[in-house]
Amino acid sequence: MSVQSTLDNRKTIRKFSDKVVSDELLYSLLESAGRTSTCGNMQLYSVVITRKPEILKQLAPAHFSQPACTNAPVLVTFCADYNRFNKWCRLNNAEPGYDNVESLLSAAVDTVALAQSFSLLAEENGLGICYLGTTTYNPRPIADALHLPSMVVPLVTLSLGYPAEQPALVDRLDVKSWVHSETYSDYSDADIHKYYDYKDQLPENQEFIKINKKQTLAQIFTDIRYTKKDGDFFSEAFVSFLREQGFLH
Amino acid sequence: MSVQSTLDNRKTIRKFSDKVVSDELLYSLLESAGRTSTCGNMQLYSVVITRKPEILKQLAPAHFSQPACTNAPVLVTFCADYNRFNKWCRLNNAEPGYDNVESLLSAAVDTVALAQSFSLLAEENGLGICYLGTTTYNPRPIADALHLPSMVVPLVTLSLGYPAEQPALVDRLDVKSWVHSETYSDYSDADIHKYYDYKDQLPENQEFIKINKKQTLAQIFTDIRYTKKDGDFFSEAFVSFLREQGFLH
Repeated sequence: MSVQSTLDNRKTIRKFSDKVVSDELLYSLLESAGRTSTCGNMQLYSVVITRKPEILKQLAPAHFSQPACTNAPVLVTFCADYNRFNKWCRLNNAEPGYDNVESLLSAAVDTVALAQSFSLLAEENGLGICYLGTTTYNPRPIADALHLPSMVVPLVTLSLGYPAEQPALVDRLDVKSWVHSETYSDYSDADIHKYYDYKDQLPENQEFIKINKKQTLAQIFTDIRYTKKDGDFFSEAFVSFLREQGFLH
Repeated sequence: MSVQSTLDNRKTIRKFSDKVVSDELLYSLLESAGRTSTCGNMQLYSVVITRKPEILKQLAPAHFSQPACTNAPVLVTFCADYNRFNKWCRLNNAEPGYDNVESLLSAAVDTVALAQSFSLLAEENGLGICYLGTTTYNPRPIADALHLPSMVVPLVTLSLGYPAEQPALVDRLDVKSWVHSETYSDYSDADIHKYYDYKDQLPENQEFIKINKKQTLAQIFTDIRYTKKDGDFFSEAFVSFLREQGFLH
């Protein structure tokens, strides 16, 4: 399949069949994903493939035991990694100075780009994937379950397997709403209405609003799914974790 | 082309021909890239396509006027964006609470994944791209040049155009060096030697070490290309920028 048709037809998959995903396939896809651009060719990442039920069970609560996680035969965790690079530096008479936020950021860009290349390769090969956004909420228990040393930070977890569902394509905003020409054009109220009003009208969102006893779809985001209280709490946990892993002082 | 052959054959391009990259092509590729997974279908990003010479000239110093930037006919800047989403919330009787690091992180994952999908689409369509790692070094002047409002943070800049060079495939670490089975296996000195020693021996790196009067390739990274002094300096600048944009208090 082309990149374009892989993207145009992709759907997040949360139910997986029993068909085994071979290590051979995963390593081969990761090898190709490794051609993704990487800052200074440093490849500041590590990937952990987890299948053992006892380790998956340890990881599940960190991902709030969401079905997209607990139903999956494999979890693949993408981590920004200076542990390996720093060891190489020290073995080569060089003193690394990467214990700062900027270094982590540049490794993070590499890591997420790698994860996205891998996702598209997986989808091209008939696998289904789901990004677990919970990885940055609970980095500490994930690091413990996966034995991540200092200078390693988990950023993306993909649950994957062969699909056991075929969901419909979800809606997306008009590309013109998020692409700007030359410089950023800020949004008027009329712009926001023009680009977003359809969302509240979608039957699935109408249902969602009704079940949750809310007035608008936006309230489901702010009051239920992504609240300020949770955001502030997980921010503090993430910042503490960066301190523990050696990226903040 | 398939995703796999696009990745297997890709090379970063830093010299571009005069052939015009149409807006029609870029919008169409961005529309397909917009199918990339996004947290809660919130699409917390904006993309700015810049071609006007006077704006490119303003952006260039923020990217240290590297040739990969100044030679390119187009720069595409990918930003994490809560400005648009927050406006939508407020117009819908919902109070957003996304002024924190965790919210930015989850938008950042979406933004980088989008940029990588777009990169592969661009490469499939004969364009060449270069990730400018300087975006997170100098977010303030980039935000000024592109008029980015509060709650918007630039994370990835791609310079792009039709290639005017055909560089060789660069080396990558053995996939086994960065993929771990079940949990993270830490590296012994012998592992690091096994996986990295070839790098110092590559003719281009031997040359690089000689020109820079260093003993090892690692010293070129730690003493010249990515120093502690720069990392600490740009970290402070980035953290100040997050405060200015409303993600830190």
